[in-house]
Parts: sequence; structure tokens; C-alpha cells
Amino acid sequence: MAKLYFRYAAMNAGKSTALLQVAHNYEERGHQVRLFTALVDDRYGLGNITSRLGPKRAAELFTPETDFLELFAAGSGISCILIDEAQFLQKAQVWALHELAHMHNLPAICYGLRTDFQGELFTGSASLLALADEIDEMKTICDCGRKATMNMRVDANQRKVTEGAQVEIGGNARYRAVCGRCFRQA
Amino acid sequence: MAKLYFRYAAMNAGKSTALLQVAHNYEERGHQVRLFTALVDDRYGLGNITSRLGPKRAAELFTPETDFLELFAAGSGISCILIDEAQFLQKAQVWALHELAHMHNLPAICYGLRTDFQGELFTGSASLLALADEIDEMKTICDCGRKATMNMRVDANQRKVTEGAQVEIGGNARYRAVCGRCFRQA
Amino acid sequence: MAKLYFRYAAMNAGKSTALLQVAHNYEERGHQVRLFTALVDDRYGLGNITSRLGPKRAAELFTPETDFLELFAAGSGISCILIDEAQFLQKAQVWALHELAHMHNLPAICYGLRTDFQGELFTGSASLLALADEIDEMKTICDCGRKATMNMRVDANQRKVTEGAQVEIGGNARYRAVCGRCFRQA
Amino acid sequence: MAKLYFRYAAMNAGKSTALLQVAHNYEERGHQVRLFTALVDDRYGLGNITSRLGPKRAAELFTPETDFLELFAAGSGISCILIDEAQFLQKAQVWALHELAHMHNLPAICYGLRTDFQGELFTGSASLLALADEIDEMKTICDCGRKATMNMRVDANQRKVTEGAQVEIGGNARYRAVCGRCFRQA
Repeated sequence: MAKLYFRYAAMNAGKSTALLQVAHNYEERGHQVRLFTALVDDRYGLGNITSRLGPKRAAELFTPETDFLELFAAGSGISCILIDEAQFLQKAQVWALHELAHMHNLPAICYGLRTDFQGELFTGSASLLALADEIDEMKTICDCGRKATMNMRVDANQRKVTEGAQVEIGGNARYRAVCGRCFRQA
Repeated sequence: MAKLYFRYAAMNAGKSTALLQVAHNYEERGHQVRLFTALVDDRYGLGNITSRLGPKRAAELFTPETDFLELFAAGSGISCILIDEAQFLQKAQVWALHELAHMHNLPAICYGLRTDFQGELFTGSASLLALADEIDEMKTICDCGRKATMNMRVDANQRKVTEGAQVEIGGNARYRAVCGRCFRQA
Repeated sequence: MAKLYFRYAAMNAGKSTALLQVAHNYEERGHQVRLFTALVDDRYGLGNITSRLGPKRAAELFTPETDFLELFAAGSGISCILIDEAQFLQKAQVWALHELAHMHNLPAICYGLRTDFQGELFTGSASLLALADEIDEMKTICDCGRKATMNMRVDANQRKVTEGAQVEIGGNARYRAVCGRCFRQA
Repeated sequence: MAKLYFRYAAMNAGKSTALLQVAHNYEERGHQVRLFTALVDDRYGLGNITSRLGPKRAAELFTPETDFLELFAAGSGISCILIDEAQFLQKAQVWALHELAHMHNLPAICYGLRTDFQGELFTGSASLLALADEIDEMKTICDCGRKATMNMRVDANQRKVTEGAQVEIGGNARYRAVCGRCFRQA
């Protein structure tokens, strides 16, 4: 029976690279996958999943209206759904992915941030942390050498920002992945 | 530097047993710990942490008013805080435990349920899933043999209950730990 | 499809407690299990699996001659094989457990030490680390507060012993679970 | 205190990609790393670590004579040692990496295969599984959809090969990453 996976990390841990590798692994074995990323994230151009190592690849865009059950419940011919920026999923979408895994035997592997710059769960992350059958952390380091767990928003002078919208329109916000101690001391 | 740990599981996986074992391990090496459990859970009598294997042990009760920073920030002489039924922690309490770990080098290991009978995160679980430095699942099995991930409330006839309060006054609710598929098919 | 599990730890992490909890969880749901422990370990009397928290329970003894395939391949009526002191399994026995999992759908969960007092793998541990479908570490602490990963043999004066048989006849050897640094500095 | 890491996987899981991502993450933060790969593996040309996604990068070659203590114990200016094809390390080299982590605070992250085409540990893998402070599996799939755990050598007709040298001179051997069941049924 298929499972719903959530692989979370702080910023810049390599989530998109890992997603592209999984897609490659499936396809190399003759399986088909479909890749999705959020409409909201346009850092690298709409509809691309981009590894900071270089590779990038077109992906379908999901919006809050995307109906994964409608897309896949009737049969899809694919072996896995791969979703980047999964912190932006809606709660109902995560329940739909859970249903696809458990009632239609279609696995979904979701990559996303755990928390925002204030340490609050994103909607998609909260639902995935509630329902995912497997939760795995992708590790990256803080400047101090410890594991980074928090995403700190900083201004142009690298000073910590504590107020503002969860997602900045235009995506001009700057972030640093830091450990719990550096997050508090900043 | 100390960490904040969340070890989550479905009902009856053995969380309390594991907590008692960790307490034993610390004490056997000459370290002191303090044990807490929620006031709300009185299945085994107030103020006890009880392993279904037999062992039980008195614990301090935490309520929504318990101020962990006040208790421990000034120095405590203990090596670890151990919290059972951690799904009932308040958000501010989880932030306090995070502060104790990262600013006062005092680790906390929290054991608790992930979701309630409707598949919703508990307040304490949501905050721990957001902030814990290490998230580990304790595994148990569904009757069908797959891993149990959901807590299904059942009535006296073992029929699934889908409506009601998150925690039933008096604790008469019955639960079964089930996998995602059995949860949906029930 | 069933899996072969290896849950390893340093001394005194709580392996036997965890095994007894898993047995309890299966039986509570109406499943039957069979418990094995090594003939070699008679700390608590032959044929017992004993939690340092108190609970203990009779178990079958395995020796290098125990033929798990013969015992179980023809059908067993059980849902899981639980093996304590699994570091003492022979290589062929681990292959047999792997065959039972993958060809007869009978899972085995093996608990054992990873390495001896010289940092060498035990025969059973080496085979389980090679073949297990899931490898999980059970964590415990060193006196210094770090994770214990090594088993240091000490003499009556708590001095590190570096020479001797892998297993001492009579079981008089004393051990301390320590981190890599304390193991080297001792 | 630094740790020794072993991240193992079957063939073609994406180990080299993951290593290159970790190197990128360190360097992006202003840390320096040194990359090693085995002399024995010349699939992509000597001295390269190559992601099947495209990126590749020059690496130093380690042989059985490489003395990591000599290279790094006196101070190195680097933040992490990254080793690909770590299954080819010698036992003494793994002990040296363990010493660098625990006595010189220099972490090493080793990527490698767990077992050969006969299900036997490689020398380097055995030593890493014995001594690593953190063991993590990188998952990939078998053609049947289950997790691949074994490396099956196949001939030109895709038939399973069961006899031969652990490493074929010239590297002409073909492999498929398969699950335990497919490995046995082939």
C-alpha cells in the first residue's frame, strides 16, 4: 500500500535537488511521475523546480484550487506524485493526497518548509505533519555548525525581522536557515 | 547544546514505557530528571505515568498554567525534563521548553499523540512538530498489520465515531490505533 | 510484505523493555508472537527477557544450531518473531530470517548490540546491518551527556579493558555505554 | 563535538547528488570542505563525483594508503570531509575518521553502498556501520515498487549473477537495485 511522505527542511537544504533525484530514479526504471510546485514561489520562474546545483525542470503549478483527487483518483498511469514547496498546500489537498495513497495506492512525496520566519507552521506543513505516513528531516547546517531548524527573515543589513506577512509579495524577503540558539540570539 | 525532542505515536505504542526507561537510564548514571504528565489524563490515577507492561511512577502534573521557564531557567540541578501526554502542552509551554534547551542547555523529551480522533493535530503536538529539534515516531501496528498512524474513536459497539469533543470529559472514550486505510474504511 | 528489522543500541539502552512492549502490543491486538533470546546471556537466568524496569518474561533460547526456517517456513500461526541479544545470531540465521520475511511474509524484529568492547561488530550484528530492511538506533546517553555509541569493558576499578575474549565466560565482565570521545579518552 | 556519518544506499539512489548538495551547502555559507572518492570507481572518469542529474565535480582520490589522520589531524581549515564510494575505505581509515570527529572535531560524511552483489558487507561499509555516530539510509525503489535494499549483478541478458569477484576489474558489471524479495526470486 502506498504512503504519503513529508520531507521537510529549513531553507536551502536541498529539497528541490532531492525531488529531482527521486523523479530521475523513477523514470530511469520506466515509471512515470508528475511534478508540482506552488504558484506562489517564483524565485526561479513560474513552473520550474530548480536545484541550486544547476539542474532544473518544468513542473505543473498547484494553486489552492488544484483538485488532486479529480486529477488522479480515476487512474493516472503514474507511479508517484512529487510536490515541491508543499508548505503551500491547503489542508483539503493534503487529505486528498492521503486518500490517493491509502485508497488508490498512489504515493505522494512532498517536500517543504516546516515553519515560517516566526516559527509558525505553514498550513501545508501542519497538515502534512498530521497525516504523513513517513516524516523525514533533510538536514542542513547553521553558520555556527549546528543543525539548522529555523528560517530567519533578515533585512538588507542582515538584521532579524520579526514582523510581517508569512509570505512577502514579490518574494524579496531574505532568509537564513539557523539553529534554535542562533534564531533566539539574533 | 541541548535539544527539544518530540517522540510521537498513535495510542498504545508504548510511549509511557519508553519515558520510564529513559528516566531509569538517566538515574542509573547518577543524573536527576523530573517527570511531568497532563492533569487531563486520569486513566491511571492523577499524577502517575504508567507503562502497560506494569511499571508506574509518580509524576508532577502540568496544567496550562505551568511555567517551565520559571521552574527551570534559574538552574535546576536536573539533566532532563521528561513529559508524557505532551499533546496537551500549550504553545507557550513548548516555546519555553525550546528556550530551556537552547538558552539554558536543559533538554526536554516530550512523548505524545500526534493527532486526535478526527485527524487534527493537538495544540501541543502542533507546537512540538514546529519547534522540536528531533522528531521521532514510535511505531505500532494496526490490526491489519500495517503501521498505525491514526487514533480512531469507537463507540461501545466498536463503530467509528466522527463527531465530538477532542477530549471527552471523564475519559470514557474508546480508541483504536489504526492505519490510514483502516481509518478511512471504518 | 514483511520486513527484517534490526534495532541496535549500546548496553543498557532499554532493548529488552522495547521488545517486551512490542510483544505486548501484538498480543493486545490478538496476534501471537514468539520470543527468543541467546543461550549465551545468563545475566538474568536462562530463558528470560528482562526489562531493567522490572517486567520479565520467559523466552525460547536460540543457539547457533537453531533453524528458524524449519521452525517457521511451513507456517507458524504467529505474526512476528522477536529476538533479543541478536548480536549472537549466526550469519545463516540472519539469512533465514530475511527469507522468512521476504518469502513467507513473517516479520522478525531483532534487538542487539552493534559492537563489542573493541569496537568490532558481532557476527549477528554484521549480518543484520547487511540485510535488515530497517535499521533503527535506540539512543542512550554517555555520562558526559552525549549519545552513547560504544560499549567499554571496565575492570573492577572502572579502568578500560582493551584485550580479552569478545564474550567473557561467566559473564563477569563489566561494561559502560559511552560516546566515541569518552571511549577514546578512557 | 563532530560526528562520523554513514549514509548508505543501494545503487543509483542518488548518493553522489546528495554529497554534492552538502558540499554546496557548506560552501554557500563560507565553509570549506574536501571531497574524496575511491580510485577504484572509474565509471565517470577518475577523480570525479558525478550526479546522474548532471552536475559533476573534481574530487581527490583515496586509496588504501590514504592517511586521513596525517592529512587532517594537525588542522585543516576545513569544516567537513565528504567521501563518496566509502564502501571502499579500509578499516583503519574509518577508525581514523572516527578519531578526527571525536578528537579533532572534524566531521566526516561518508556515502556508500551497504552490500555487494552477494549480500556481503564491503570492508568500508562494515567499519562504518560499526563506528558511525549516525547511520542513515537513502531510499530508492525496486522495479516492483518496494524499497530497494540489495544490489543484484546481472549479465548482458539481465540474468542474476551469483559468483565472481566483489568488484569487477574494468567495471563492466551491471547492477540493479532490488528489494529483498526480487533479489531472492531472480
